[in-house]
Amino acid sequence: MWRSHLARSLHQHRNQPEARFLQLATIGLDQRPRNRTVVFRGFLENSDRLKIVTDNRSQKVAQIVANPYAEINWYFPKTRSQFRILGKLILINQESADVELQSARKAAWQSLSEPARIQFSWAHPREAKSIDSLEITPPDLNQPLDSFSLLLLEPIEIDRLELRGAPQNRWLYLRDAQGDWTEQEVNP
Amino acid sequence: MWRSHLARSLHQHRNQPEARFLQLATIGLDQRPRNRTVVFRGFLENSDRLKIVTDNRSQKVAQIVANPYAEINWYFPKTRSQFRILGKLILINQESADVELQSARKAAWQSLSEPARIQFSWAHPREAKSIDSLEITPPDLNQPLDSFSLLLLEPIEIDRLELRGAPQNRWLYLRDAQGDWTEQEVNP
Repeated sequence: MWRSHLARSLHQHRNQPEARFLQLATIGLDQRPRNRTVVFRGFLENSDRLKIVTDNRSQKVAQIVANPYAEINWYFPKTRSQFRILGKLILINQESADVELQSARKAAWQSLSEPARIQFSWAHPREAKSIDSLEITPPDLNQPLDSFSLLLLEPIEIDRLELRGAPQNRWLYLRDAQGDWTEQEVNP
Repeated sequence: MWRSHLARSLHQHRNQPEARFLQLATIGLDQRPRNRTVVFRGFLENSDRLKIVTDNRSQKVAQIVANPYAEINWYFPKTRSQFRILGKLILINQESADVELQSARKAAWQSLSEPARIQFSWAHPREAKSIDSLEITPPDLNQPLDSFSLLLLEPIEIDRLELRGAPQNRWLYLRDAQGDWTEQEVNP
């Protein structure tokens, strides 16, 4: 249901790399909202979980530990579609014991470009600019750096708005206790 | 300082209307983050306050009354610039007593396109789809509907990230008690 619509929007933007950029909102430790652009890295196999990668030293990691709820906003200009995906974030760092998820973390590391991997060896993000922040030694492809985490967003509720048309069209998708999705058409 | 960089990004995207779309994160009444795409309507005259319009019946209005903090995420694909603007939202509805702000609300109403104004007479957003949601009578240009509010985001902190370059470049801008901005270069 919502996955097929999302797949269609992604397909229609396949020549625009920035269509895989989406906005991830979390709640700060000071109870203020925080919102940053991240890259969609596909779905975890056989699941609806969206993959994102993050630096463990970034503020969002501490925020997620305190409150795992997040909402993604994903707007596609060509199709004029907006997907809002509310869910819970699961952090998979170097200490995660789940073998399958640890293997997904390693695969996510390996699928990054080398320049993207190098970023995880840069100086501490958001601290005063350090002169040695340019690290150019490529990290080991087979050993993710400790600063590297995989984030999975487990969707709970989707709000899909299609701006084409007057009035516009809008649907809510809710996941029930069995993990099945129900769909409801609502006013835009 | 940050305004000139934002102005430059807007100028370089002047042929892309969707570059004026940005993502506004607030905190839901259930303490979960909420994130939606809204349209930037310019700055309030002689101020750093960003103008947004909203339907009073939308969920964000109740959220803002409970917690006025919000963070905007604004990503510009051509310049590869991200602006995160943390601030407090000020709601100006039909009951706002401030004459100047009420006049700004009316001006915002008048500067909307007619199709955009008509949306404020549609059926209640996010409720079950009603068959009469298509209202085609244009509302009075000189009398904003009660459902129409102007939102102002008063910035407190800006995080500017420029993705071009390795390493990337990042700056924090903080507003002090006097309303002046300080700038600090930080690690990306």
